[in-house]
Amino acid sequence: MRIPTHELEAKLTELVRRPEVPELAALLEELQPYDLAEVLPAFGYDDIRTLLGHLDPPVAAEVLEHLEYFDQYRILDHMDRGLARRIVEHMPSDALADLVGAIHPKQAQQLIDLLPPEHARVIEGLLDYPEYTAGGLMTVEYISVRSGMTVEQVLQHIRKVGAGAETVAYIYVIDGAGRLVGVVSVRELLLAEPDTVIADIMGTQVVAVPATMHQEEVAQVVAQYDFVAIPVVDAHGRMAGIITVDDLVDVIHDEATEDFHKLGGSEPLTETYFQTPVHTLVRKRIGWILILFLAEAYTGTVLRHFESVLSEVVALTFFIPLLIGTGGNTGSQVVTTLVRGLAVGEVRYRDMGRVLLRELGSGLMIGLVMGGATFLRAYTLGVGLDVGRVVALTALFIVVWASAVAAVLPLILHRLRVDPAIVSGPFITTVVDGTGLFMYFTIARMMLGLG
Amino acid sequence: MRIPTHELEAKLTELVRRPEVPELAALLEELQPYDLAEVLPAFGYDDIRTLLGHLDPPVAAEVLEHLEYFDQYRILDHMDRGLARRIVEHMPSDALADLVGAIHPKQAQQLIDLLPPEHARVIEGLLDYPEYTAGGLMTVEYISVRSGMTVEQVLQHIRKVGAGAETVAYIYVIDGAGRLVGVVSVRELLLAEPDTVIADIMGTQVVAVPATMHQEEVAQVVAQYDFVAIPVVDAHGRMAGIITVDDLVDVIHDEATEDFHKLGGSEPLTETYFQTPVHTLVRKRIGWILILFLAEAYTGTVLRHFESVLSEVVALTFFIPLLIGTGGNTGSQVVTTLVRGLAVGEVRYRDMGRVLLRELGSGLMIGLVMGGATFLRAYTLGVGLDVGRVVALTALFIVVWASAVAAVLPLILHRLRVDPAIVSGPFITTVVDGTGLFMYFTIARMMLGLG
Repeated sequence: MRIPTHELEAKLTELVRRPEVPELAALLEELQPYDLAEVLPAFGYDDIRTLLGHLDPPVAAEVLEHLEYFDQYRILDHMDRGLARRIVEHMPSDALADLVGAIHPKQAQQLIDLLPPEHARVIEGLLDYPEYTAGGLMTVEYISVRSGMTVEQVLQHIRKVGAGAETVAYIYVIDGAGRLVGVVSVRELLLAEPDTVIADIMGTQVVAVPATMHQEEVAQVVAQYDFVAIPVVDAHGRMAGIITVDDLVDVIHDEATEDFHKLGGSEPLTETYFQTPVHTLVRKRIGWILILFLAEAYTGTVLRHFESVLSEVVALTFFIPLLIGTGGNTGSQVVTTLVRGLAVGEVRYRDMGRVLLRELGSGLMIGLVMGGATFLRAYTLGVGLDVGRVVALTALFIVVWASAVAAVLPLILHRLRVDPAIVSGPFITTVVDGTGLFMYFTIARMMLGLG
Repeated sequence: MRIPTHELEAKLTELVRRPEVPELAALLEELQPYDLAEVLPAFGYDDIRTLLGHLDPPVAAEVLEHLEYFDQYRILDHMDRGLARRIVEHMPSDALADLVGAIHPKQAQQLIDLLPPEHARVIEGLLDYPEYTAGGLMTVEYISVRSGMTVEQVLQHIRKVGAGAETVAYIYVIDGAGRLVGVVSVRELLLAEPDTVIADIMGTQVVAVPATMHQEEVAQVVAQYDFVAIPVVDAHGRMAGIITVDDLVDVIHDEATEDFHKLGGSEPLTETYFQTPVHTLVRKRIGWILILFLAEAYTGTVLRHFESVLSEVVALTFFIPLLIGTGGNTGSQVVTTLVRGLAVGEVRYRDMGRVLLRELGSGLMIGLVMGGATFLRAYTLGVGLDVGRVVALTALFIVVWASAVAAVLPLILHRLRVDPAIVSGPFITTVVDGTGLFMYFTIARMMLGLG
């Protein structure tokens, strides 16, 4: 069973001082790379060197991969060149390209210089793909074979190159021009007779994604097909790399986080909460707050326009927050449902009519209940039946109006290729506030016979 | 390459009428189960029977798995018992248990009756685990071996049972009591010499999760370790099943969707948007709307309390939506950041002090900017310098106050084991509205020297 983190740290601290004791090697061999990565930053450079030096370079590379980019560079930089070179050479190409892309160009060059020229060119090639595309995510450590090989030959090939591959779950079959023509799973290989020719057992309807596809879409494809890895092809159908599901799990996490922040009316953070300095928090937030402020500012104009109504019946003021709050909350619910529906592909632009009908129906039902609730509230505040009728009718109108706006806006934005997550609760609330107030005082003026 | 969905449907429609033509079998053999599942519901029961009957039962079972539960049952119910039995027998235990748990008990019994008694007991055993736990997610189709076996023996074992296993990526080593004592990856098997004993190459620090662990936590563990499958153990350390990453990808999706809906102030939907009837939408939404309404209702009390101030300076009313809106937006931003931080484990309860300090700092900076902006807005509305000073100062106070409330509340709820996602934008907005208005009119009364 797994050792708890604090025990592991204590045990390693004790053992690392006596690296000659076989216990250290035995413990390190048993550890999961992630568990070691969790405790590693607590150690000094000398100790880290000792610990990583005890590991096989591919395992040391995997440990490093679990750390923040800056920690990865810092640790490599404090090592002797030999060990650093062995580790860097064994890093999967996607992880190394991500690291090189994340640090200062000068530091990046130092790492690139550790690699043999051909390997360096591969990493530099990966850096040409935009970060959020399939090409930016993929690794080139996949296993490829030719369709004329036998199962036995492929198994031998795996024994030779398998240690450096990102996954052995799928073996890809390519033709003389490098085009992806088939795929065989390791399960099929193991179940097949040794002299079977690959062409006879390979699947030829290979699901692959183009290198230019956005990572969110890649994650959707992989989730749909329940794959553990997906091949990436270039514009000519040539195999360019693979993306494994563990990287896509991170993508799903990151994209959900991004949508969360947008829904909350804020630019997404690029680092973890505590790594983000307060002034960056402010910078990410202030833009939206100011835009929403400007949009909300016209509520002042609406209210000033109805100044005479306000001074004649001060009681109308009591219900301003309640009415616009209820409208905002309704809109917020509808928007969230639709933004998520669009993100996971359940709702599309062409569904606009159906969505609007459903949300008007829902809005009407909720509006009737809220009209009643508002009327009761008016009664308990003792503002008289006249005002009560005005606010009840307004509540109904505002809820239906907010539902309609919130139903239509996300679909239109999605169509315009603007991320609909930006029509967050705050945004809808703001739109509904001003228009809702206009309705309120117009209804009041008419029903109360005011100037 | 993959055939587009509409072409596939047309091609299958044409071929299914002439099932004797070898083309149909050839096409079906090449298809991904997901692609066939996408077009299947468009066909009649006779055609579906023909199409699924052409497939190997394990593949037909996989196709079925991609459909909604009701469609799965409906299709099985319209088949002859022999074919239905062959397909059900080949469904992975987790998928079958999910299906049986989702449909009407009478229908479920019909399916269970198709299975041999021992198999039926396994499925019924899985149904005992709560739906959202590791036990509710796991499948029992894993490959287990004993530590004394050689690599060659294990490979032979895989050839025998591998077709029915959920994954061959990991082979689990159990002792005589069924306890999980080790794990070997298929890669290690392929790279090892055939006569190596498993005990010599297996990893003994196995990361496993208890059957009672919540699925969200399981997903976090698997994402951290980059596993493609994780073993599940019972209270006695006995191997109970495995969970594969594709099921966890669905979990991550579902949990994010759930948090989204909560953040939008609505109960999560259990089905897709269009599958949810409008009255269910209303039922999911109305509860929160009413709770928020009741919470917001006290703004009326606050405003009535300041009725004399309101009638003396009507201009103060103009800024009500703007001030409470800005407070709500600020709170909404902070809450979203923290709810996400808590969900992914970046922020914890014990960080309360740091979080509060950071958010007060951020709030102060944003508050100063918003104070200035509000003052300018007051100037453009022509309400006079006195009122301008009041609203500017209030804007500063409300932003700082909203930041503080939004910083503390999610952490406290998390500590109380209430999902912090419920302190959504709407919730924070409501809390800030009433308290903010109280500040506003208290400041106004003091600075303007009103009664």
